[in-house]
Amino acid sequence: MSVSPQQRPEAVRANVDFDGPVFRAHEGGKLGVHATQPLRGREDLSLLYTPGVADVCRAIAVEPELASRYTARGNTVAVVSDGTAVLGLGDIGPLAAMPVMEGKAILFKHFGDIDAVPVCLETGTVDELVETIARLAPSWGGINLEDISAPRCFEIEARLKERLDIPVFHDDQHGTAIVVLAGLINAAKVVGRELADLRVVVAGAGAAGVAVTALLQRAGVRDIVVCDSRGIISPTRADLTGHKHRIAASTNPRGLSGTLATALEDADVYVGVSGGTVPEEDVARMAPSSIIFALANPDPEVHPDVAHRHAAVVATGRSDFPNQINNVLAFPGIFRGALDSGAAQITEAMKLAAAEAIAAMVPEPTADEIVPSVFAPGVADTVAAAVARLARG
Amino acid sequence: MSVSPQQRPEAVRANVDFDGPVFRAHEGGKLGVHATQPLRGREDLSLLYTPGVADVCRAIAVEPELASRYTARGNTVAVVSDGTAVLGLGDIGPLAAMPVMEGKAILFKHFGDIDAVPVCLETGTVDELVETIARLAPSWGGINLEDISAPRCFEIEARLKERLDIPVFHDDQHGTAIVVLAGLINAAKVVGRELADLRVVVAGAGAAGVAVTALLQRAGVRDIVVCDSRGIISPTRADLTGHKHRIAASTNPRGLSGTLATALEDADVYVGVSGGTVPEEDVARMAPSSIIFALANPDPEVHPDVAHRHAAVVATGRSDFPNQINNVLAFPGIFRGALDSGAAQITEAMKLAAAEAIAAMVPEPTADEIVPSVFAPGVADTVAAAVARLARG
Repeated sequence: MSVSPQQRPEAVRANVDFDGPVFRAHEGGKLGVHATQPLRGREDLSLLYTPGVADVCRAIAVEPELASRYTARGNTVAVVSDGTAVLGLGDIGPLAAMPVMEGKAILFKHFGDIDAVPVCLETGTVDELVETIARLAPSWGGINLEDISAPRCFEIEARLKERLDIPVFHDDQHGTAIVVLAGLINAAKVVGRELADLRVVVAGAGAAGVAVTALLQRAGVRDIVVCDSRGIISPTRADLTGHKHRIAASTNPRGLSGTLATALEDADVYVGVSGGTVPEEDVARMAPSSIIFALANPDPEVHPDVAHRHAAVVATGRSDFPNQINNVLAFPGIFRGALDSGAAQITEAMKLAAAEAIAAMVPEPTADEIVPSVFAPGVADTVAAAVARLARG
Repeated sequence: MSVSPQQRPEAVRANVDFDGPVFRAHEGGKLGVHATQPLRGREDLSLLYTPGVADVCRAIAVEPELASRYTARGNTVAVVSDGTAVLGLGDIGPLAAMPVMEGKAILFKHFGDIDAVPVCLETGTVDELVETIARLAPSWGGINLEDISAPRCFEIEARLKERLDIPVFHDDQHGTAIVVLAGLINAAKVVGRELADLRVVVAGAGAAGVAVTALLQRAGVRDIVVCDSRGIISPTRADLTGHKHRIAASTNPRGLSGTLATALEDADVYVGVSGGTVPEEDVARMAPSSIIFALANPDPEVHPDVAHRHAAVVATGRSDFPNQINNVLAFPGIFRGALDSGAAQITEAMKLAAAEAIAAMVPEPTADEIVPSVFAPGVADTVAAAVARLARG
């Protein structure tokens, strides 16, 4: 799945179906900009541009709050990436990340009626990226960070949140976390358990793993064991840096050490956000009535057929199996609610409320329906209302 | 006309007609973003987003040229400002500049079918602005710089042009220069003169004045005298810095010194891009059959009624008098041509060709028609064709 700039174009070209439906759908790009006001002649021009526009500029200059009402900024979100962690493709750079950001912008529009603009920037130091994004903030009502590699993404988001008075939201972290929590709330209902009593294994300590862990903890899960590619993260490991130290300090209450297989013994929940494959014998060691969220795309860490032999509830990131854990259930409503309410931040409480709102859209969850369909009507509106309620206090 | 952040909001509010047509036309902003492909369900989602989009990303990663075909980048121009020289309002900052940039984006769409996104950034040093804009260049197919104060604008544009392989065009400079030249080509025809024989006075040594001077010289005008607020720019002045030294070195062949009044004696052409008012007695000293372009908005340096008492051809920046010198005649076609032809730069030759193309749209110019109307059909296409022809060599 990965790609390297060293690959010869001919080799990639040979495997590309330029006449197929994907490339045809991308011809000319997927996004356009349009005027929301008619421009029929000189009179309209004098209202929308000079001389009329000067009145609006002057008013905003002395009363900046008016910008959200009299410019498109109030409904515009930048989808910002440096292309360092795009899908499963890795660090493919800002230009090659553009199709994903345009796709994301389409989702913002379709599900949240939000005008989103792709902003792909050359990779640099954390300082440089923070500075670049912060300087451009006057253009937008919110910033959705996307596909920025861990651990850089944590510091970039934290510093932008501190510096700016508009919502900043790294979707790979929090969008995933919100929908995982929504699914887990309902999966727990299906198996008749409380979140606080579950033993959860999170496989993956990147952007998604860190955020999933933090949000599940906030929702009341007490026993989480996080694994990275070297196994269980615990304070006894000598190879931990930065954010993994923080994980070690706040998780793993039973002090386990070893491999993912050890973590899975008697675990109630597996959340895979790592890729790779979990051997069936390890899956078999989980507790009875277990819950498996194998979210790697396109190849789940545990294939649903395997998972169903051992677990009571199975979810993936794929649309062709039941229980698709898809960020699009969260981010359009999150930003819709934040923009509508003028929220300066997406708070932890809002993320929790969003997860609960998504879960509540399936009033009687079953093993095959723990989250609403991506295309279920009203999801974004329901999430937006939950977020806006908290923003307005 | 100017505004200061120190003004009390109440004082501005008291003069603002929030219920009038200008503010009503700006409610919610003037721009929207839309998908150019249908999103009807899961199948479309899998083409436009994951998993399909990964194929497009992978192809662009190894063959960057594909980005202009398979993303919207190929038709997208950023309208970039730091809000330091907005209309006649001065340094009102990036947020208050947004309505102008949105208006400009509407013009790009309407006249050039170009998707333009407003990008307003916090003022900083020239280094910081160049770095910020350059980092974001992967997102766009071209950059239109707008309302950035002189002399910073000269260095910012020059450095971005050197650094980037997409067109960078400061419209306040070159858009104005192109349309002024177009108008002057036809005005000279009306009075039966050659450009090379005209004595031209350019009043204003900011962004527009510098670019007008350079383009007129390139078109063959040999005798240009540039005036700033202190009078004629000549090597004898002790107060010159930076770009005014360069003006002094390349203009004023008769070695004049003194005020604008001195410069206007026996001048054939006055180009006002400065604001202020020229006394009628100074206008009266111009040569017979003179040409007056009084381009300050909304108040021309010489009112057309006054100008007509002394000049054979009169142009302004206003739509309610004949001969409106309006950048919109140039920039949509300039960028359309550059994007269509994949031009990496807007060259001096392209600017000249654009001016000639605009002039040629009025085959038999008269004193009341030296440039086409802003809404005349085909202007942008004609300019685009002229630009693209040069780009393709």
